[in-house]
Amino acid sequence: MAETYRVGLLGHGTVGAAFAELLAERADAIVPITGLRPEITGVLTRSRGSFDEVLEGSDLIVELIGGVEPARAYVLRAMRAGRHVVSANKQLLAAHGEELWACAREHGVQLRFEGAVAGVVPVIRVLQESLAAARVERIHGIVNGTTNYILTEMASRGLAYEEALGQAQQLGYAEADPTDDVTGRDAAAKMAILARLAFSTPVHLDQVVYEGIEHLTAEDMEYAKELGLGLKLIGTAERVDGGISVRVHPAFLYAGHPLASVHGPFNAVTVESEAITEVTLSGPGAGGPQTATAVLGDVVSAMIPPASTPETTEALPVVNDIESAFYLHMEVADRPGVLAQVAELLGMQGASIRSVVQKGLGENARLVLILHPLLESRFYAAMRMIGQLDFIRSAPRAIRVIDEEFT
Amino acid sequence: MAETYRVGLLGHGTVGAAFAELLAERADAIVPITGLRPEITGVLTRSRGSFDEVLEGSDLIVELIGGVEPARAYVLRAMRAGRHVVSANKQLLAAHGEELWACAREHGVQLRFEGAVAGVVPVIRVLQESLAAARVERIHGIVNGTTNYILTEMASRGLAYEEALGQAQQLGYAEADPTDDVTGRDAAAKMAILARLAFSTPVHLDQVVYEGIEHLTAEDMEYAKELGLGLKLIGTAERVDGGISVRVHPAFLYAGHPLASVHGPFNAVTVESEAITEVTLSGPGAGGPQTATAVLGDVVSAMIPPASTPETTEALPVVNDIESAFYLHMEVADRPGVLAQVAELLGMQGASIRSVVQKGLGENARLVLILHPLLESRFYAAMRMIGQLDFIRSAPRAIRVIDEEFT
Repeated sequence: MAETYRVGLLGHGTVGAAFAELLAERADAIVPITGLRPEITGVLTRSRGSFDEVLEGSDLIVELIGGVEPARAYVLRAMRAGRHVVSANKQLLAAHGEELWACAREHGVQLRFEGAVAGVVPVIRVLQESLAAARVERIHGIVNGTTNYILTEMASRGLAYEEALGQAQQLGYAEADPTDDVTGRDAAAKMAILARLAFSTPVHLDQVVYEGIEHLTAEDMEYAKELGLGLKLIGTAERVDGGISVRVHPAFLYAGHPLASVHGPFNAVTVESEAITEVTLSGPGAGGPQTATAVLGDVVSAMIPPASTPETTEALPVVNDIESAFYLHMEVADRPGVLAQVAELLGMQGASIRSVVQKGLGENARLVLILHPLLESRFYAAMRMIGQLDFIRSAPRAIRVIDEEFT
Repeated sequence: MAETYRVGLLGHGTVGAAFAELLAERADAIVPITGLRPEITGVLTRSRGSFDEVLEGSDLIVELIGGVEPARAYVLRAMRAGRHVVSANKQLLAAHGEELWACAREHGVQLRFEGAVAGVVPVIRVLQESLAAARVERIHGIVNGTTNYILTEMASRGLAYEEALGQAQQLGYAEADPTDDVTGRDAAAKMAILARLAFSTPVHLDQVVYEGIEHLTAEDMEYAKELGLGLKLIGTAERVDGGISVRVHPAFLYAGHPLASVHGPFNAVTVESEAITEVTLSGPGAGGPQTATAVLGDVVSAMIPPASTPETTEALPVVNDIESAFYLHMEVADRPGVLAQVAELLGMQGASIRSVVQKGLGENARLVLILHPLLESRFYAAMRMIGQLDFIRSAPRAIRVIDEEFT
């Protein structure tokens, strides 16, 4: 009979319950891997249990409470007491990661958090271990399943944003209050964590610029199709001259991009590095059973050997003004010289046009341009000036475009 | 100044040279992760060096010789001398894995082999660690970049097999003697390794049924397009009633399948399990720098903590007769009753038809059927009988079809 490995569980919501069930189901299979049989020996919920008792009776703490406090206090106390911790709490790690990782190093314990970023897609492990020896240049990710589901429904079935959101809520892919997801804030927290690991430099949630999907229209989706593009909410973390850029925004992807074919409530992350070109990982986004599987994988790893989160070795500045390609959508009066004036203003900012679609709408016309990459500040300067031209009938709208050959 | 971690290198071909270069380049970045500075302290090639001296002066041995002997003898001797071993040698592991893993366990050393299966795509680590707690049901993989490149060129540019192969050879994606790749034998070795890890049951290369791509034609590709299918060389390892099936063969994929969009010399692996649905990993197949990155990732892992290859805990039989869906291609005399007779013979074996395409060719017609899944033995029995009908103008040809909803 294998010795028991005592797991204390904080939180017993959807993921917590799925974790407890999965652990019981897989305990036998974990014995030959670790020599120990994991068992939940204490549970703390909002209404019952004592943290001190759970801690006392455990070898490892699984934190599935969510939110910053009291999760942060519990995780710190557990590590100070010499317990390994497994957490799926992205807000906590994105806001207080350095404090927590330093505490883990100081007390020689493990802090694992695969479930915090992309459900069962093992991007944390791959970054920390498989690619430990690679110099990562860029990460692109679809790290929020809710928004990817909404965008997929808008694209494939022509739904308006509100309809697709309502449907996502009915199916349980979106919460009653979807703000964190649709504004890009959830994805921003995940990108902060990925950037920290990829570049060994501190990155705080507040440093991540984000833009959501609430303003996207069914019409944007139609143009996307016409132009052979897919429209996704993309998180990016990349090296730029002298620093890094970490951001989340909607972006068009050319059909050949590995993230273009990621549909529905799925997550996917592409890691680029010179030596490896690129590696893409994809799978279902966070759901109870998926996150529980990621958490249990971390528990199993913690049962075997010590891994460490290396100290940050660089202090790279986070850069916000970077080069991007853009899609620019305008409604204009349908008269001669319009495109020439737009092109002139763009040219003054160094923007060059890759393709143009113009469509008549009675007296007005719809003008869609795809631009080659330029500094975002210069693009927005041009867009502001274009918005003031007398033939503009509605405010110009911009969406970034990601392309292999562009970026 | 960090202490030196001494790496002995066996083999200095394409991958060996790339590994030595990468290690020198990344040594500084590895210090904060491991506390040690890796350095190559001995090299053995066909023409120079002594194994005993390389072994004596090393903490870890990297085996990049390839082939079974003398690689097997060296790896065993290194582990018996207490050295960790990192190898990218699929033939060795697929044929002698149990002996090598037992030796590693006996001597308390690590044997890591991420580079052996899918280049830099970290499928070994994900199976052994992230999914250690999941019960894997099925793995589908494109694990040979050469054949995927050839099939991509045939599909996208209408090349004949021989033309595409010639082009792959010119570009260095195929070797002068491409037999191992195009017959599916290389992929079979990789699938044997993946099946062993996924199912904790011994799997030897000789137990893997494989079929190559040499008999595929440009016409098959045209039908694939017409039917909305992609044609790939797919390795499968899956649980079947009472055992497992491990095999490699060309297969059609429906457009929504995660492997359908993997083009060119790329590798990709999909792991299915009830709790996780599926996870897909993709990236460039084995090339010097990619495999070197995977090998260095393993070296870094070995420098940190001990991981172990658990003993096999099951002894599942390897099953060869499984259910598959098929594409069946025939040239027949263009006369009444042909389809009815074909359908009758199929029906006698329990095959049911999913779709039919028939095209006139003067006096003859080309008849293509897609069948719902049935036992392969029954399908082939029906195909043999169909081949003997008097209206058959050329031998019927079959290709398997993989679909999410089918399998």
